[in-house]
This record gives sequence, structure tokens and C-alpha cells, in this order.
Amino acid sequence: MNQQIILAKRPTGMPDTTHLPLVESAMPEPDDGQVLIRTIYLSLDPYMRGRMSAAKSYAASVEEGAVMEGQSVGQVVRSRSSDFAEGDFVLAPGGWQAYAAVAGKHLRKLDPADAPISTAVGVLGMPGFTAYAGLEEIGKPQSGETVVVSAAAGAVGQVVGQIARIKGCRVVGVAGADDKCAHVVEAYGFDACVNYKADDFEDQLAAACPDGIDVYWENVGGRVFEAVMGLVNDFARIPVCGRIAHYNDTQAPAGPDRLPGFMGRILVKRLLFKGFIQFDYAYLRDDFARDMSAWIRAGDVRYQEDIVQGLENAVDAFQGLLSGRNRGKLLVQVGEDPTRS
Amino acid sequence: MNQQIILAKRPTGMPDTTHLPLVESAMPEPDDGQVLIRTIYLSLDPYMRGRMSAAKSYAASVEEGAVMEGQSVGQVVRSRSSDFAEGDFVLAPGGWQAYAAVAGKHLRKLDPADAPISTAVGVLGMPGFTAYAGLEEIGKPQSGETVVVSAAAGAVGQVVGQIARIKGCRVVGVAGADDKCAHVVEAYGFDACVNYKADDFEDQLAAACPDGIDVYWENVGGRVFEAVMGLVNDFARIPVCGRIAHYNDTQAPAGPDRLPGFMGRILVKRLLFKGFIQFDYAYLRDDFARDMSAWIRAGDVRYQEDIVQGLENAVDAFQGLLSGRNRGKLLVQVGEDPTRS
Repeated sequence: MNQQIILAKRPTGMPDTTHLPLVESAMPEPDDGQVLIRTIYLSLDPYMRGRMSAAKSYAASVEEGAVMEGQSVGQVVRSRSSDFAEGDFVLAPGGWQAYAAVAGKHLRKLDPADAPISTAVGVLGMPGFTAYAGLEEIGKPQSGETVVVSAAAGAVGQVVGQIARIKGCRVVGVAGADDKCAHVVEAYGFDACVNYKADDFEDQLAAACPDGIDVYWENVGGRVFEAVMGLVNDFARIPVCGRIAHYNDTQAPAGPDRLPGFMGRILVKRLLFKGFIQFDYAYLRDDFARDMSAWIRAGDVRYQEDIVQGLENAVDAFQGLLSGRNRGKLLVQVGEDPTRS
Repeated sequence: MNQQIILAKRPTGMPDTTHLPLVESAMPEPDDGQVLIRTIYLSLDPYMRGRMSAAKSYAASVEEGAVMEGQSVGQVVRSRSSDFAEGDFVLAPGGWQAYAAVAGKHLRKLDPADAPISTAVGVLGMPGFTAYAGLEEIGKPQSGETVVVSAAAGAVGQVVGQIARIKGCRVVGVAGADDKCAHVVEAYGFDACVNYKADDFEDQLAAACPDGIDVYWENVGGRVFEAVMGLVNDFARIPVCGRIAHYNDTQAPAGPDRLPGFMGRILVKRLLFKGFIQFDYAYLRDDFARDMSAWIRAGDVRYQEDIVQGLENAVDAFQGLLSGRNRGKLLVQVGEDPTRS
């Protein structure tokens, strides 16, 4: 039998197992051209909250009753594609399930000798590429500038800060726990990191950015965004990558309406705001693969993974992701990883 | 004696003659290197409201008690600069006054044979250049796209729409009066223009933009901005040039707080917002002078001026500018124009 987590009904606010139950189903049968994949790691990412909603977004919603979508790293159990053999490791759009039958054309083969296979959904995958593309195309950090990164300890934020550091910037992280802050300074070489849950967060952030803020990497919204807006320099660039503080919002917050004042600041400070999603920048993928592999080999980019055991814990882990409980790139280990001792 | 309008005290809300009284003062004496200029046309522009405020902006505030700043077109009455002779027409930072003594290095000589001298503060001056630079660097309209221009009949908006039309776009204006709308369609070749004071403005705008909106030229904020946000296409660009509906705001409007929802739209639709001020793009001035002169000669760009007679009517005219009463580029004729019959 297969195990799957399906979108039984669309959540309002925080999703739980009533929206995302674990069900058993028949083992999938690969069609011609498909392979049967045993999931090893399921990637959990904030964008998935959007896919659970019926609201129009840059990707179609998951249908009610369907398996939740997601990228996974797995191993080929049976192949009906000439491009893949039993035992191959692959990156797949496998979804939240133990086994998936996927067409060969949607898979990418992974060589465990190149890098740990889990990094294909992390620092060398979508989150790492998001960081790379958003800085390259929007943030454009220049040596000597100050870059502030929200969700600094997360899968994207940790890479953003390290690329900015490589480019010669002062890098200031913002995270929601003191141990996360300590980690991004010690492990990733951020110049400072401020806990946004501190009473005097705004003062701490100002003290950490004595020359103002030139690039703000927006992952979160909320209190962090508000504090940053008071510190941005003229011509600051704000790649809008996410706003996780608001993903479970069910209505617009109470007033006053801050939008007119915000537009005034965009005008007077000549700010650049640009929303983006990594797949808009596919033309940068080769550059990314080359640069990021080199940085990792040289020790210039490091990464942290937070691996939760068992598909049955995926929903709890996803709740943790939306509330900041994870430490680094969040993965669910669904099956044994024969490449790790 | 000279006549001047000074900033006697900073306005809260709409400025009037208690803030901006007309006073008499001694005729200025040009120092060495300066010329004495007789003001012919004083340019009135929305940015001046910001200069009356103490709030930090991209230019210093006018000091209380000082003459209000502004660009003017005038004629040299007496010269102590080797670069200018009596009778020369000049573009000057002359301020709201009948006579000004200005250093020669701050002046630009105007040849009435090239273009009407008033256009140096209009279509061939700051407002025209604002339109040109904001489209060139931010809006980047592509042939076949839909460009919506707020304050379409104003000094900047009328030029924005005509450049976008030249570039092959569908151009939809938004203005606050039916005669303004008729004018931008008939005189400037806009494809449509919608009156934002109409009860069914939102429906009319949607009907005028059947393929959505790719570029929105933001001059106003308020109801127009809100309606546009519901119609923008993915990857739309929004040059934030002004927000005149809010210049007299004294506090943030009541809730709900639309900012989080707005940031969500930036993300999902991958919108680009960029505030700007024309002097950031000085490197485009030669291109502008070449292109705009050619367009005017070819009849591709036309313009309308709204000339109010007498410095004593400048404050009333400025109130009209902030409330949309003007028709085209607003000028105050302070003295005789010997180039007009």
C-alpha cells in the first residue's frame, strides 16, 4: 500500500490534519515512460500554503481530494523509462506520499558523489536558486551596502545572507529565536542578527544597521517589514519573496490604513519593490548551478537542514514551518536514505 | 518694489494665503556673476506641496519666511554675468516672485525660435522629462501592452500617454472631469479615458482595459490606484511619480489596513513598483531633448497649457492644481511675454 497526505478540504487559517489527512491507497503503477519512485525526502516549503488555497496565484491550486504537491528526492524502484534505472536517485515532483509514479521527463537524476542528495531540494535546489535569482535580478547588492534578510535562518534566507556576504555587503539577519540568530552569525558569517520577538527589536535593528538598509529581502511581512521601512536608504531594493507572517491571515488587519503612507515612502525614497517567483528566472539556472556548487566546495556557502522523521509528522512539521519552529531547510524523511551512513 | 509669495507658515492640509501671503520687498540687486530676471511664467507643480512641509523628502524644505521655490521663465533685465545679456530669455530657479537675482550658472538660455518659451517648464522641461524618464527606466512599455495614466490631462500625464501611444501601446487615461477625458482622447490620441468621479468608474476602467494593465503611471493614489490594482497583469510595472490625492493628508486613513494585501499582490503578480524623481535620471536629458523636440515638430506630441494671470492668483491656482481644477500644464503669467502676440 501507498501512504499519501491529501488536501481533503481547504484550510482557513492554520492547516491541520483535518485538512491534510494521511490516507492509505493502492501502490501506483508506472505507465509507459514513467518510473515508480520511493520517496526519501519530501521538501516542505512556505509556498505550499498558497497551493492549499483556492485563491488565484502564480500556480494552480491543488484540487480538493488530490495528493498535496511538493518536490521530493527519491530512488527509482521500477522504471518504464529508458532514461532511468532501478536504484537511480532522482529529484521529482513526487508530492506528499511514500511512492509516486512520475513521467521520466519530469525527473532529474542526482549523483550522490556530487552533493548530498537532500541538497537538490535545498541549497542546490529551489530555495537556493530563489536566493540567487532574487539577488541577481532585483536586490543587486553592491560591496559595502547593508543587506537585511528576514527569515534569515530559513532555507532561502541562509543562502541570501551568504551570497550577500560573498559580494562584500554588511549582512544583518532577522529571525525569531536567539539560537537561530546565533547560528546565522556563527555558521554563515552574518555580521549581526536580531530577534524580531525582542521587545526592543526596532532599536536593535537600527543599531545593527548604522548606515541604513540598501537591500531588504522580504520573506515575512509583519513587524519586521514595518521596522525595516523606517531604516531604508534612498534607492533601496526590496525583493518580495514571501510574507509568511500573513499566509494564514483570514482578513485584512484593523486600521489605520498604512498603504498611502507606504506609497509615499516608495516615492520619496525612490524605493524598488519587485515581487518574484524563482521560475520566472529559469535562464539563470546554469549560472546558479556553477556558482553555488563552487561556493559550497570552497566552504563559502554552508547550509543547515532540519529533517523530521516520518510522513505522519509532515503536517505538524508544516505548521512548524509557518510558525518559525524549523531550524534551516525543512525536510521530511519519508524513507531510508542509503547514501547516509 | 518686488512682489513675492513667501512661506509664512507651514500648512496643515490645503495651503492658503495665510500660509503663502503676497508681500512687497526691495528690488533684488544682482551680485557679481548674477543676473536680474523679470519673471514671465512661474511654473506650478504638485511637488511644491512637499517643499512646504517640514517632512524629510528628496529635496530640502523651503524655510519659513523664505520665498516659495519654483522654476520660472523670464527675461534678463540686468546682467552681471558674461554669459547673459539684457533681453535674453532664460529658464531659472526664480521662485514665486516678480523679479529674481540668480547666478548665471543656474540659468539656461532659451531661444524663442526653437519653441515657445513657456514649454521650458512644460513639455520640454521638467514635466515632459519626468514622463520620458519614468517610462524609459521603469514603465518600459512594449508595443501592444496597455498603459493606464492617472492625472492624464496634467502636465506629466499628457506626455506619458503620448509617448506610450508612439510606442504602440493601448493608452487609457484617467482624469477627474469629462472635458479633460474628451481632450486627452481627441488632442493626444489616447484610446480611452475614464472619469474617476463616475459612480461606475471601476467598471468603466475594466471595460477600457480588456487585456488588463501592463503599465500604470501613478500620479494620484486614492480610488484610481485601488481600481488599477484589481486589473494589473502579471509583471506589470508601476512608476510611482506622485500621489496627489494624498498630499494634503493629515493622518493615515481609517482601516482596514490594506498594506499586507497589497504586498501579497506584489508577490503573486510579480509587480514592479519604483518611486522616482526626474533628477535621478539626468543622464537621459540629451536623449529627451532630441526625441521630444522631434516628436513635437512631427506633431506626434501635443500639449495644453493652463495660464493663470497674475502672481496674486498663484495660491488660488495652486489650490486648483491640488484639487484637479487645471487643464494641462499650469503656469502663472507674472509679467508680459514679448514673444507672444
